[in-house]
Amino acid sequence: MRFGCALIALGALSIAAAAPPAQSAPDASAVQRLIGSAQFKQAAAFIDADYDRFVTELITLTEIPAPPFKEAARAKAYAQLLRDAGLADVEIDAEGNAMGVRKGTAGGSMVAVLAHLDTVFPEGTDVTIKRQGTRLMAPGVGDNTRGLALMLAVVRAMQAGRFQTTSDVLFVGNVGEEGEGDLRGVKYLLRQGKYKDRIKQFIAIDGGDQSSITNGGVGSLRYRVTFKGPGGHSYGAFGLVNPAFAMGEAIAKFSHMHVPVEPRTTFNVGVVSGGTSVNSIPSEVSMDVDMRSESCAELKKVNDAFLALVGLAVDGENVARSTREGKIEADPKLIGDRPCGETPLTSPIVLTAAAAVKSFGLTPRYSISSTDSNVPMNMGVPAVTIGRGAPGGRGHAPDEWTDVERKGSVDAIKVAMTIIVAVASLP
Amino acid sequence: MRFGCALIALGALSIAAAAPPAQSAPDASAVQRLIGSAQFKQAAAFIDADYDRFVTELITLTEIPAPPFKEAARAKAYAQLLRDAGLADVEIDAEGNAMGVRKGTAGGSMVAVLAHLDTVFPEGTDVTIKRQGTRLMAPGVGDNTRGLALMLAVVRAMQAGRFQTTSDVLFVGNVGEEGEGDLRGVKYLLRQGKYKDRIKQFIAIDGGDQSSITNGGVGSLRYRVTFKGPGGHSYGAFGLVNPAFAMGEAIAKFSHMHVPVEPRTTFNVGVVSGGTSVNSIPSEVSMDVDMRSESCAELKKVNDAFLALVGLAVDGENVARSTREGKIEADPKLIGDRPCGETPLTSPIVLTAAAAVKSFGLTPRYSISSTDSNVPMNMGVPAVTIGRGAPGGRGHAPDEWTDVERKGSVDAIKVAMTIIVAVASLP
Repeated sequence: MRFGCALIALGALSIAAAAPPAQSAPDASAVQRLIGSAQFKQAAAFIDADYDRFVTELITLTEIPAPPFKEAARAKAYAQLLRDAGLADVEIDAEGNAMGVRKGTAGGSMVAVLAHLDTVFPEGTDVTIKRQGTRLMAPGVGDNTRGLALMLAVVRAMQAGRFQTTSDVLFVGNVGEEGEGDLRGVKYLLRQGKYKDRIKQFIAIDGGDQSSITNGGVGSLRYRVTFKGPGGHSYGAFGLVNPAFAMGEAIAKFSHMHVPVEPRTTFNVGVVSGGTSVNSIPSEVSMDVDMRSESCAELKKVNDAFLALVGLAVDGENVARSTREGKIEADPKLIGDRPCGETPLTSPIVLTAAAAVKSFGLTPRYSISSTDSNVPMNMGVPAVTIGRGAPGGRGHAPDEWTDVERKGSVDAIKVAMTIIVAVASLP
Repeated sequence: MRFGCALIALGALSIAAAAPPAQSAPDASAVQRLIGSAQFKQAAAFIDADYDRFVTELITLTEIPAPPFKEAARAKAYAQLLRDAGLADVEIDAEGNAMGVRKGTAGGSMVAVLAHLDTVFPEGTDVTIKRQGTRLMAPGVGDNTRGLALMLAVVRAMQAGRFQTTSDVLFVGNVGEEGEGDLRGVKYLLRQGKYKDRIKQFIAIDGGDQSSITNGGVGSLRYRVTFKGPGGHSYGAFGLVNPAFAMGEAIAKFSHMHVPVEPRTTFNVGVVSGGTSVNSIPSEVSMDVDMRSESCAELKKVNDAFLALVGLAVDGENVARSTREGKIEADPKLIGDRPCGETPLTSPIVLTAAAAVKSFGLTPRYSISSTDSNVPMNMGVPAVTIGRGAPGGRGHAPDEWTDVERKGSVDAIKVAMTIIVAVASLP
């Protein structure tokens, strides 16, 4: 059963959650030294000068459609932009992630910095930018094309500043963050990709304003459960097991489940379907189920309980009616698996990101959400998701917009660069 | 609520079931006198001579497609054949039934004799007759085109025998017997048509061989129950009422219902559907439900229990979760209503039909089924469904066939004529 993987992954998370704060946890002074450095001044000046290019690239990238599972054209363009920005080893991996490396001094461990290529919008969506002053409007312009453009600006600024980081930095425009993409880009990168054993820290650029630090990943598990039976005529074959009855029983039991308000834990039956006619016992019905939790332990609990109650409902139907023509069987197929996870507030990556945010006069705003960082968090790789710049709105809607007013945009790039350089400079 | 009608109808049936045998119940001697009469001999000779025309008309009518709700072409042809056979007041009524009258002597009450025009086969089905010896094969050739052809032969034989019946006989090629037609032709005829108050007895020609007398109607009620709620995001709006949960609860309760084996009573959830995505609380889901019983009382019980449990499931969901964005509501829409009913074995129409069958050396075979007679039985109008002639097979299948071997065909017409004339001659 594929969902076996999820349970193992859930188990693994507890290692990360239980890990003590590293002894080398930096304080704000490291970030202050960075900001006071000559390199930083040079990089910051470059960011100011590079603003127009940032806007141009944001428009160019937005207008290359990148529906789920169809990010190839944008990936190709992004790989070229990473190459143009001076990264080494630029390539598109087997999953479709576009990536390149900026070498560090230690020559081993890596910080992965990601912005996802995909949008939620299907093929054929008009992605032409509409501009009103500093406001750009187009599907996907904020989530997450702005993240992609910001990342390019950061790469160029790091080159301009000639920063020497300890870790290599792997910059990735990744596929499959949205919806049914199911975090496939990051899963590949961290579980199968060539750098999987070298990535020791992880920064996703996919939030709103620069005060946002996502250090927890809401886990979710999704199933399509298919109930099958022999079927038959509603009158002539009455008395045979009915998969709709088994599914109804499972839904009823599921609806009676108790979950905690804190940590937030939820469950849903979103879609039901099956059967051919009112006067036939169905041979097959199915339901799509979604379960989420801020807590790995609670997600495991609700998942285990759900799978158990599906089994009970099936067994109950096979006892209640005749199985002479065949039994009811249920097949819970995992159709979504966003692993839960957490990076402790006391971990170096969170402390560093927070120090960087504070150094720009902002107050860090911690959150638990569902982003590409879920995967590393679940594996015990310290990870945060940081902001791409604000203001913006109507994400996932056709009238999505983002504001590229100069000062806000430039500041956002500076904060992101500070976080990335500081994390990559951790001992 | 439309289903109110069904409950009233169910209630009405008990009047018919409880009625004492009429004092004028005929014995076999009346049928014997009929068979011994000069008129009968003349009519029987006519039937023998008319055989080729019966076969020709069966072929002609079979090759005019008559899918459910698309019986108009066949109705038009049939009306002309009824006119050619010498009936008066031939017309096609507002529902599409083709009909004509043969006057009786009492000038008031009517016996309605029906054969349904519709087949189960959709538009575009090849209805060309394939003939192998006396076997005719084509979709619908048996069910119920043979009934239509037999009825025409009976009309002509009654004219040839110059029978004077007490009642008028209304001969009808009716629409809507099959499937979703839901007995619409007969419902119109008996509830709204111009003769609705004059029809006192009812004979449907729609069985197999001539020993068959259907004197009970399996009732069925079908619903599409739609559960609606406010919907919302599976995570963000978790805690709101979920119509899939209410429907699951209803299905579970339904599946626990106890029904008797005798009289045979059944229930089914045949189709479930609804919801838009796994991560949305559905705003609407629905299920298609079928309930049947040989017993009006049991059908009423299962129907009442079903509607009550839908209400309980909805109420339960509205208590279990938040209704701040709206409540769950269920709308049980009646999509099928074949009323149950019974004509007592001691009623004149059954006794007469049985006597006619016996007079041809056959043993009456009584059955409970679902035919056009369900409607009059439920209204307390004495009704039977009799045979159209056998052998035949593969009804409702593309390779349906019926055998028109001369002696069997001619005998079937004679038995049917005897039943019709004898019933129309009841005082």
